[in-house]
Order: sequence, then C-alpha cells, then structure tokens
Amino acid sequence: MSENGGFASRSGIADIEETPKFAPKFSAEGLIPAIVADTGSGKVLMFAWMNAEALEATFATGEAHFFSRSRRRLWKKGESSGEVLKVERVLTDCDQDVILLRVTPQGRGAACHTGRRSCFYREVRRENGAWRLETVGAERLFDPTDVYDENDEPA
Amino acid sequence: MSENGGFASRSGIADIEETPKFAPKFSAEGLIPAIVADTGSGKVLMFAWMNAEALEATFATGEAHFFSRSRRRLWKKGESSGEVLKVERVLTDCDQDVILLRVTPQGRGAACHTGRRSCFYREVRRENGAWRLETVGAERLFDPTDVYDENDEPA
Repeated sequence: MSENGGFASRSGIADIEETPKFAPKFSAEGLIPAIVADTGSGKVLMFAWMNAEALEATFATGEAHFFSRSRRRLWKKGESSGEVLKVERVLTDCDQDVILLRVTPQGRGAACHTGRRSCFYREVRRENGAWRLETVGAERLFDPTDVYDENDEPA
Repeated sequence: MSENGGFASRSGIADIEETPKFAPKFSAEGLIPAIVADTGSGKVLMFAWMNAEALEATFATGEAHFFSRSRRRLWKKGESSGEVLKVERVLTDCDQDVILLRVTPQGRGAACHTGRRSCFYREVRRENGAWRLETVGAERLFDPTDVYDENDEPA
C-alpha cells in the first residue's frame, strides 16, 4: 500500500496532469469532492464526498457510493430511497482532486433527497443588493415523507 | 452583518431546503465548493472554491471569480489567460453548501489551465485490480507554455 490509500503517490504537477497514473488527492479527512452529472442530459444532479472506500465500492458495484460526513460512514446512494445511481463513467480533473461521475439515475430518477431530479433546483439572484433564491425546475418525482423514516437520514 | 458573512443565517433543515433565503454554508475556512458547467453543452468544465468575496465579485461583474487556496487570494478566472467565464446563472443545492455556475466560456473556450475545454479530460479505469487514467476529449485549444509566465500560477 502506498501512502495515498492504495493509489499512486502524487509527485510533480506535470506528472499529475498528463499521467495515466491515478493519484487522487484526498483531503486531510481522506475525502475527495464528487460531482454527479446525468449521462443523458449532461445536467449536474448532486454533489457529495468520496473516500477511498467509496471509490472502490463504486467501481466494484457500478453504483455510486459516497462517504456521509454526518453519519461518518460509507453510503450507497439510494440505499433507503431506491434512487440508485448507475455509474457509466468516472472522470477526474487536471490536478486529480475532484471526481466526476456520469450516471443514469434508477428508481424514479430523483437524485435529490427532496424528491427532485437534481439538487440544484434554486437559482441565486441578487437584486438591489439583496440576495434571494428562486425555485426553478423543482417538480418532485416523489414525496420525501413517503420515502424516509423520520429517524432515518435521507440517502 | 449576520454571522454568515452577510448572507442569511442557517436555521432548520426545512428552512434551508425550501426557502427563498440564500444562506450558503461556508466551511471553517470560509469556502464553498463551486462547480462550473457550460450553459451550451451542459458539460462540467471545472471545479473551484468560492468565498463570500468571490460570490460578491461574480455577481458584481457577471464573470466567474473564485478563491485560490494556493495563493490565498481572490482570483478572477482568466485574469492571466484571458479565458474568462461569463456567468449566465448561479444555482445552489438543497442544503445550500455547493454553488453551480452555468457559464459561457470566453477567449478560446478553454476553461482548463492545461488549454483544454474542460478539466475533466481523463477517465478513471479499473482493470484487473489496477487503476489507470485514460485520456478522453483532450484536444488543447491553447498551449499553456504560451499563456502563463513560468513564475505565474495558472489562472
């Protein structure tokens, strides 16, 4: 095992940017940001965090796994809601400190725990110096009160 | 000024998810993750971090600003390369701890400092237990050695 959680170690910038070596940069907490986009529409659906175990589990199963910072554990997206994300492609960025998952949503197609297709259903506006949110594309594909136990954190 | 950098303070979950109040969640370092996607193609172009000042500057100018963690300062994307990102829409997610910028790239259309359209030009593969990166869609729209001084960190 290398010092980078079983992945290649990170050497110079040129090596990281132009290499076929996968040397992801994890934070001090062992996490890397993960963006989830819809393969079909290209739209960004959600954002979460992965650790090395979540990355391994995602490749092992073909379904998106993350690390829940609030629950401090591996989390399979859809484990309670059924809204599993089938992973088509996994990409990383130039400096290998972000993961991008291209997915096909299963279940009802609601990646957001609020029952919406995408977590990004509100636009930020600034008018006369005041900030506000405007709801856009916010149709719910399920009612979260039907899906999650009240003691259960959404997944 | 509220305790949340001039933005609304964060109260209960229901309030954060279904409110028109913009109450972004900044990390202990005052940062929020920012995903950048192309308005035209929908594709994810890059990922960076914003602080309250970068968010303000983005709205004031209509051009994407971030916080450079390595240089510890506000950073206008394209300030040295000319690859400015015109911001069409700013969105936030259900729990308001991520920003999504929908942009139209200016200049040569290369959001990545390596000269590529997107920072996500490599796919992560796992074969026989080994990890490797495969380059995809990696055409360069500029040569970074022509654009950045050797003493200048890419922007």
